[in-house]
Amino acid sequence: MFESAELGHKIDKETYRKAVPKLRAALLDAQYDLKEQGKIPVVVLISGQDGAGKGETINVLYEWMDPRFISTLAFSTPTDEERQRPAMWRYWRALPPKGRIGIFAGSWYSDPIHDSIEETISKFALDQRIDQINRFEAMLVNEGALVLKFWFHLTKDAQKKRLKELEKDPKTAWRVTKWNWDRLKTYDKLQDVAGHMLRMTNTPWAPWIIVEGADDRYRSLTVGKIILDSLKKKLADKVKDVTPVAPPVPPNIDGRDIISELDLTHRLTKAAYETELAKWQGKLSELVRHPRFKERSLVCVFEGADAAGKGGSIRRIGAAMDARQYQIVPIAAPTEEERAQPYLWRFWRHIPRTGRVAIFDRSWYGRVLVERVEGFCAEADWLRAYTEINDFEHELAKAGAIVIKFWLQISREEQLKRFKEREKIEFKRFKITEEDWRNRKKWDAYHRAICDMVDRTSTGDAPWTLVEANDKNYARVKILKTVCERLEAALKKKNKL
Amino acid sequence: MFESAELGHKIDKETYRKAVPKLRAALLDAQYDLKEQGKIPVVVLISGQDGAGKGETINVLYEWMDPRFISTLAFSTPTDEERQRPAMWRYWRALPPKGRIGIFAGSWYSDPIHDSIEETISKFALDQRIDQINRFEAMLVNEGALVLKFWFHLTKDAQKKRLKELEKDPKTAWRVTKWNWDRLKTYDKLQDVAGHMLRMTNTPWAPWIIVEGADDRYRSLTVGKIILDSLKKKLADKVKDVTPVAPPVPPNIDGRDIISELDLTHRLTKAAYETELAKWQGKLSELVRHPRFKERSLVCVFEGADAAGKGGSIRRIGAAMDARQYQIVPIAAPTEEERAQPYLWRFWRHIPRTGRVAIFDRSWYGRVLVERVEGFCAEADWLRAYTEINDFEHELAKAGAIVIKFWLQISREEQLKRFKEREKIEFKRFKITEEDWRNRKKWDAYHRAICDMVDRTSTGDAPWTLVEANDKNYARVKILKTVCERLEAALKKKNKL
Repeated sequence: MFESAELGHKIDKETYRKAVPKLRAALLDAQYDLKEQGKIPVVVLISGQDGAGKGETINVLYEWMDPRFISTLAFSTPTDEERQRPAMWRYWRALPPKGRIGIFAGSWYSDPIHDSIEETISKFALDQRIDQINRFEAMLVNEGALVLKFWFHLTKDAQKKRLKELEKDPKTAWRVTKWNWDRLKTYDKLQDVAGHMLRMTNTPWAPWIIVEGADDRYRSLTVGKIILDSLKKKLADKVKDVTPVAPPVPPNIDGRDIISELDLTHRLTKAAYETELAKWQGKLSELVRHPRFKERSLVCVFEGADAAGKGGSIRRIGAAMDARQYQIVPIAAPTEEERAQPYLWRFWRHIPRTGRVAIFDRSWYGRVLVERVEGFCAEADWLRAYTEINDFEHELAKAGAIVIKFWLQISREEQLKRFKEREKIEFKRFKITEEDWRNRKKWDAYHRAICDMVDRTSTGDAPWTLVEANDKNYARVKILKTVCERLEAALKKKNKL
Repeated sequence: MFESAELGHKIDKETYRKAVPKLRAALLDAQYDLKEQGKIPVVVLISGQDGAGKGETINVLYEWMDPRFISTLAFSTPTDEERQRPAMWRYWRALPPKGRIGIFAGSWYSDPIHDSIEETISKFALDQRIDQINRFEAMLVNEGALVLKFWFHLTKDAQKKRLKELEKDPKTAWRVTKWNWDRLKTYDKLQDVAGHMLRMTNTPWAPWIIVEGADDRYRSLTVGKIILDSLKKKLADKVKDVTPVAPPVPPNIDGRDIISELDLTHRLTKAAYETELAKWQGKLSELVRHPRFKERSLVCVFEGADAAGKGGSIRRIGAAMDARQYQIVPIAAPTEEERAQPYLWRFWRHIPRTGRVAIFDRSWYGRVLVERVEGFCAEADWLRAYTEINDFEHELAKAGAIVIKFWLQISREEQLKRFKEREKIEFKRFKITEEDWRNRKKWDAYHRAICDMVDRTSTGDAPWTLVEANDKNYARVKILKTVCERLEAALKKKNKL
């Protein structure tokens, strides 16, 4: 894997001096095209052996390009806000927006590599991480990103030589510390681990680029040229989506499906409702104060037909908790900063810390519901979304989140009744818009989309609960009860998953 | 202060039932106008005695208005990301954008009130906090916000009675915990502290609204009506800026000023430059690894004429540090999310944690430079900005930040020379735009703005360093040296300020 990067590549001063001005000008042009076009985020990973020129390369890139549109993302010990969320959260929050370049000094590879060197991760867990990384990078590329993963290589002798040279020169001696010399000791171990890691994550959509790091001029020119070529190719839109479109959903030939089978006649009397409501709210308020909940978090997702009663149900859950503990996240049109990111980004930013609750009023499922039905995204995009969403929820669950998803279903007649009622009551008019009437006309298309969604995203980590919501009392109690039961079951277990 | 809120206000069921639908409709209308107009962020503080209906009021507001455009911000123990920044950072990051309503359950009053009850804050420090709060709220209002501060009051007897009632009813018994009963014990203390606090922060621009909390219907109707009236008044633009415009800058009658007095002939030979550069970079790399720096942070601000060499100087500082420790923050046009916030918000979001460094390439001083000169903001806005900026930097300093500000000055001739050079070199062309040529024509207006800026914002906490930058070598070394000396002096002290 590293053979070509041990040949002793070198570029002489004169060649370098001639090549650089042209390269800089071309890089700048490409960078401005990137910015102008505003469609592609560029993710550059800078990794490799210590002393192989990682820091120097970052400095060169800053010098050669317009630094206003580059950011360097570096990661040290996670903060508690980061530790209390899924491991990938810190990287999501650092992703560069479209049109910009984000240089990752340290990345999602750092922890697995570190843990492998320290031997604190099992082979099985490592493979899972690798699989997760490959899926994450595929998602980035599918979302339009250019992902360039550099690994700077250096032989052990070259590493030693480099440190000595730096130490000898009074101008650079201050850069060499004990920490650097210690790295020499773990050289072999890192080579082993990196060899495995790089091989397993060397995907066609985000291949590793191994660069010999010993010669500054060779390294800088190589990196510059690779970035330039990749940018140009990507800007010319010659790079295609990586994920093959999933096989078509099986046709429904007998007219039966999970939504049609729901018994919407379930009812609850007012008296029974009030008793049950108090019972489950009391229960919920105890559960979220359970000592073990401090290690967990709760993510509730509410989806449902228009006027199905999502808001009322959400308020009944909120009423059982302290305002400091939960956050309602209503999903409206994305902001400019959100539109410049992969579509899951705006949900990642609201993922709760341990001990906290987030209630999503509509969610990432918009991708496979409204965006699918209205044609707001390409078929390939919503088809791959099922897998991306499952991965996302799996990551939440792995970090201790209890993910509970509700689909609130009402009949077409009940919806019409509620629409008309809303139009009559002045303070409820805001709840009914032209769009709701339009959506209603697409009842069948939504019906199909809902069935597909449930089939493809009801997983062990995060199953869907379908709620018969023609009767609000019945629906609210069923929801509260489900939340309590899922929470209780999760808190009984000692381990998170 | 609380007398009117101890009269036993009550609203009967019938009156309430009649009033609510109209109020809800009007509130919704106002909320949509607010959103449509998109100019006013609404900050609602919900505070007061426990059991006085804080949570209930939040629920009512959610029910009466469109919850998609309301968010509740609640604050418990600060996270380490929050603790490692100025105390106000967590509130800044939670501010609602223009057109939205943010309900603060807990606010910048919580800590001073808590500390006063526990007697862990001196009278002097408390007064400082109060002063800071008043200035902060004035800034919010000047930036267009509507600030509504509710205090829900309850007599001690009413508090006891309320807890007993809640406990008796099986539907609400779960809401009463030991924590609530404990609050009774601190009732008197809280009344004392709140009395002082409320009186001192009862400003004309953000007065306290004290509401009797015993009767649900009275409290809900009162709050609803106050919000409605305030929204309507604010939307009709009948509320004026609070800060009187500062006295005019004294005229310059002898033609001497701090910029003209700079000796721009300072030079450094290449050899001297290289020795000095290595010396100060080595020094800086040691200083940022000093154990005491873990408790401090470094904020560097670079302002200067176009082509004065900000970028090159910044890179020389960065080269002395680990990429994980510092962040370069280039200030370009604000994003949509940033434009929806007070102008300092986009700088607050980049404030470094302790142990970290942020280097601002242009900064909040844009307000009193380009925005003043180009007329991008009203005179009153840039005039009040001097004070707001001083408050901001004082807060940084108080939290342990070392704030170092550089103005890089070159002569008009040197600028012309550099502009022309840049146009000749292909890869430097991006550095020179039409705008630079336009700015150049306003040299004198900028000159005046710079002098005012330095006079008004060079404070003990955060003095300006003027850099003679006609010679790049000289400028870079002066900058590095200044950073080292300021850092060293700060790290010698045991205490932060």
